Amino acid sequence: MILENVNSPEDVKALSPEQLRVLSAEIREFLIKVTSERGGHLASNLGVVELTLALHRVFDCPHDRIIFDVSHQSYVHKIITGRKDGMAAALRTYGGISGFQKRSESDCDAFGSGHASTSVSAAVGFAAADKLSGSDSCTVAVIGDGALTGGMAYEALNNCAKYDNLIIVLNDNGMSISRNVGGNSRHLARIRTSKRYFRFKSFTEKLFGAVPGIGKYLVKGARRLKNCVKRVFVRENFFEQLGLHYFGPIDGKDIAKIEDVLREAKNDGVCSVVHICTRKGEGYPPAEREPDLYHGVSGFDIETGNIINGARSCSDVFGDELCRLAELDDRICAVTAAMKDGTGLVGFASRFPERFFDVGIAEEHAMTFSAGLAAGGKKPVLALYSTFAQRAYDQLIHDVALQSLPVVLAIDRAGIVGADGPTHHGMFDVSFMNAVPGLTVFSPYTESELRVCLKAALDMDAPCAVRYPRGAVPEGKSVSDGDYAVTDYGSGEFPNAAVVTYGSETSECEKACVTARANGMNIRLIRLIKIKPLPDISGLIRSAPLVVVAEEGMKSGGIGEEIAALCAADRTRRRVEILAADGFLPQGTIAELRAAAGIDADSILRKICG
Amino acid sequence: MILENVNSPEDVKALSPEQLRVLSAEIREFLIKVTSERGGHLASNLGVVELTLALHRVFDCPHDRIIFDVSHQSYVHKIITGRKDGMAAALRTYGGISGFQKRSESDCDAFGSGHASTSVSAAVGFAAADKLSGSDSCTVAVIGDGALTGGMAYEALNNCAKYDNLIIVLNDNGMSISRNVGGNSRHLARIRTSKRYFRFKSFTEKLFGAVPGIGKYLVKGARRLKNCVKRVFVRENFFEQLGLHYFGPIDGKDIAKIEDVLREAKNDGVCSVVHICTRKGEGYPPAEREPDLYHGVSGFDIETGNIINGARSCSDVFGDELCRLAELDDRICAVTAAMKDGTGLVGFASRFPERFFDVGIAEEHAMTFSAGLAAGGKKPVLALYSTFAQRAYDQLIHDVALQSLPVVLAIDRAGIVGADGPTHHGMFDVSFMNAVPGLTVFSPYTESELRVCLKAALDMDAPCAVRYPRGAVPEGKSVSDGDYAVTDYGSGEFPNAAVVTYGSETSECEKACVTARANGMNIRLIRLIKIKPLPDISGLIRSAPLVVVAEEGMKSGGIGEEIAALCAADRTRRRVEILAADGFLPQGTIAELRAAAGIDADSILRKICG
Repeated sequence: MILENVNSPEDVKALSPEQLRVLSAEIREFLIKVTSERGGHLASNLGVVELTLALHRVFDCPHDRIIFDVSHQSYVHKIITGRKDGMAAALRTYGGISGFQKRSESDCDAFGSGHASTSVSAAVGFAAADKLSGSDSCTVAVIGDGALTGGMAYEALNNCAKYDNLIIVLNDNGMSISRNVGGNSRHLARIRTSKRYFRFKSFTEKLFGAVPGIGKYLVKGARRLKNCVKRVFVRENFFEQLGLHYFGPIDGKDIAKIEDVLREAKNDGVCSVVHICTRKGEGYPPAEREPDLYHGVSGFDIETGNIINGARSCSDVFGDELCRLAELDDRICAVTAAMKDGTGLVGFASRFPERFFDVGIAEEHAMTFSAGLAAGGKKPVLALYSTFAQRAYDQLIHDVALQSLPVVLAIDRAGIVGADGPTHHGMFDVSFMNAVPGLTVFSPYTESELRVCLKAALDMDAPCAVRYPRGAVPEGKSVSDGDYAVTDYGSGEFPNAAVVTYGSETSECEKACVTARANGMNIRLIRLIKIKPLPDISGLIRSAPLVVVAEEGMKSGGIGEEIAALCAADRTRRRVEILAADGFLPQGTIAELRAAAGIDADSILRKICG
Repeated sequence: MILENVNSPEDVKALSPEQLRVLSAEIREFLIKVTSERGGHLASNLGVVELTLALHRVFDCPHDRIIFDVSHQSYVHKIITGRKDGMAAALRTYGGISGFQKRSESDCDAFGSGHASTSVSAAVGFAAADKLSGSDSCTVAVIGDGALTGGMAYEALNNCAKYDNLIIVLNDNGMSISRNVGGNSRHLARIRTSKRYFRFKSFTEKLFGAVPGIGKYLVKGARRLKNCVKRVFVRENFFEQLGLHYFGPIDGKDIAKIEDVLREAKNDGVCSVVHICTRKGEGYPPAEREPDLYHGVSGFDIETGNIINGARSCSDVFGDELCRLAELDDRICAVTAAMKDGTGLVGFASRFPERFFDVGIAEEHAMTFSAGLAAGGKKPVLALYSTFAQRAYDQLIHDVALQSLPVVLAIDRAGIVGADGPTHHGMFDVSFMNAVPGLTVFSPYTESELRVCLKAALDMDAPCAVRYPRGAVPEGKSVSDGDYAVTDYGSGEFPNAAVVTYGSETSECEKACVTARANGMNIRLIRLIKIKPLPDISGLIRSAPLVVVAEEGMKSGGIGEEIAALCAADRTRRRVEILAADGFLPQGTIAELRAAAGIDADSILRKICG
């Protein structure tokens, strides 16, 4: 095993080509084993094994910096930089190694991420800082062609040209998470397949490179000619128009070639783009066949490739109900920002292809595009993960809410998501949506409620959001089609406390109420289904001396503060205790993270009894 | 006067070329007169007179739709669509005509705006809706080259190719608000000045167009050749790479030529980009000379061109103090998203050009670029208008706060801005920043405090924001260098009420307190300077039975709710009344809008006495 002895970038630099070939295979085996057991991102990491090895042979981390965009494809980088044992033991667990780059985890992780299209901006920042400081560090951003559909990447590329200490590696696998979309994707595909250019290039290099002595000068002269000819056959490409040097496309399995070009780019004297063609899932046949299925997995059987699927999720219910409603109303459209699978829209896309819009990793555009659809008489449903909806906050305010356009937001992954950690938890949506005038927000708990809320949202002639958590929908629960549901735990007329909650936090509150009742207390549980505008629950809480509000979201701007403000303005004063998050949550299981945030059943019970 | 009789697009369609020439001059005179008296956007409107006339001659509003990006350049459109008398009487006043497109104002305003780079997204939405409905409407987005630096525009352009009912008019004047920046700007400039291409084009058209009978077929054949040759000389451009047809560049004063090309684009069968070269300030020499000065004005003298300048603004104080601090610490950098003038950074840019970064209208990139600078050891200060900071919310959470990188946000135009209206008021920043863990927020009131807070922010090793309003800084006020300042109005030991406020709302609270004292009441005014984390003011409010919190921001997520939550959790209960906005505010004077929002001195006084 070569991998056993690889604990730092220096170890990789010392290897022979043959050893690198063996190491690549061992790394793939390791990746498959770890993700089969612990879940995580597989397909994209399998694709960048050789690229990452080449990067660490050419650049010196942490002096140089390698910033992976989104950074779900940084597993190989983590293996090389001394974290393989930590990954095997505790990848994506509470206190363990993160599934993303993280500054606090290693000085080889210069910049953390989890959202797409940020790497180039961060890298330009480092490059500018180094210029000012006179440092000779080099910064490399590794960005996929999918992340290039995000406008932020373009904003950054537009500001790169003057940095010769900056290299953009385009990791081109033709995919976002699903297959990539849009004009620029077609443009990249055209560059990739431009055989005429490849042929010419290879011809001139062979012709002149072979001349003894002066060959290299001829090659240099030929390069000028090549650049001219390239413009005839391939035309000047996107990157060159932004003032960057372009190298490629290069076979993503050819370590020696990648190293050569990276060295050339490093010494090139301008900001360069190195275009590497990789394949998602490389080396594991099931992932090669269905790379989107193996993008992020919860675990799988290595032999058969069978992926462990959870129970029916909220996303499934949403997608299913949206199809049902779309059959009845041909104005209904679905919009996604490269999350067709994750948001449960695969069925909709195949049944209503004309009414399905995947706009790429482009949440800002997705929101205003939806506003345009609504202004044009359609009923758009924009499905976004809560954490990515943060990207479209201004568009929600400025384009949707200010004009009161009937866009329905389906906010998936609201609340704690678990192993993906702080970049992926959906902790802010209640707070930031609460401040938006004229927006209605539903937070259903059961499958039936999710269906009812989605229909209610589509029936409104105003902006509306329906938010629901990652994972399974509770079954066998009571169902309400009103704005809230009330359960009295205990038998007295006057409750000792009223507990107010909504959405996924309901299960913890129910547990706390059951225990409190067993201890002889009389508790009223009010579960909100519509959370904005807040339903009138004043009559329900008036008789309780204590109101406990528990929410799986941020305290500031949440429902708890709103209820506290109501109670504080009321002359018949009641004490209000709020249980909500007030910091970033790490990765872990949902149970671990609820406990860490103080919103688990035990914490609720203590407040009820306190 | 031809303008007198122009009350609808039909009136413009009926005019002869000579009449259009006269009308253009009359419109310019009207624009200069109205903005000299009422303030508003002048330079950009002067530039698009002929373009707007041509658009309304080729397209039929409201059946077709013309969506102006940002829409500060929609004055000519408003004149043509029946609003010139309203503009002359009440442009940008409370209840009057808006300085931007607004759906509620006219059915010729298909989509409102005020922020940059949204027009193409909205237009794609309309185009997609029309395709589904089978409508033959055409949608035109008019976008400046400045707004093209915004990534959202790129996201939208990446999704345009399949819509033949969509036209993008690139209004290219080489400017954002200041001179335009970045690689794509240079790319556009190269297209504009590509004389060889112009020559070839003109040559083929003359050569073949003159042939009787079959001339047009030859021209068509020549166009194919032209496209090939164009790729040699001009290369394929940005838009063509995204799969769009490109027409241009065209002289922005040549109405007949613009009309011809727009008609060709309309019937072209694919999504087209029509590139029009205009000049900001066209026809008014002072604005031609200094287009950025005349971008948005408060009023000016027509004869001399002398602009009415207000008193020393918060932006001036900020820029001045930042220069002072930057002299002492060479790690300090300033970052702006195309708002060098508006944010007071002109002096910094000229004194410290190496440490000044204008990244274009690209708030998302600006935030993460600043995070990169900070991670690279610099002290970046990112100056953004409050309303535009909404664009970078995810980057603030994900890139700055989660990694606790010491980025200083200078949030200008916080609170009500006045005549620019709902798209420009900075009403959300306190709420959305309050929810972000680990972020410190200052809201100084006086000039001295602004200076002290900026220094304190730069001395922190964590994310920090300093927010301040549009316009002048109060003078002769008491100054505090603590986290809050207390003034007791009245002499008793126990106040009748404690009033809590911060920032610009202080002046209204002071007025209310003075009146209440004159009425024999005893009021304690607590003015917060640090608003997050909330300073411990519990001792100061404990003795008052009533706490009134007044803020120029949204109620949800504001300081009022936070104080209410504190008081509601406390067993020694006090009544808390919150005065804050809970809806969108229209345009008007700051006094009118405070009254409309119920946060003026009278409203505060009523709560104190109530």
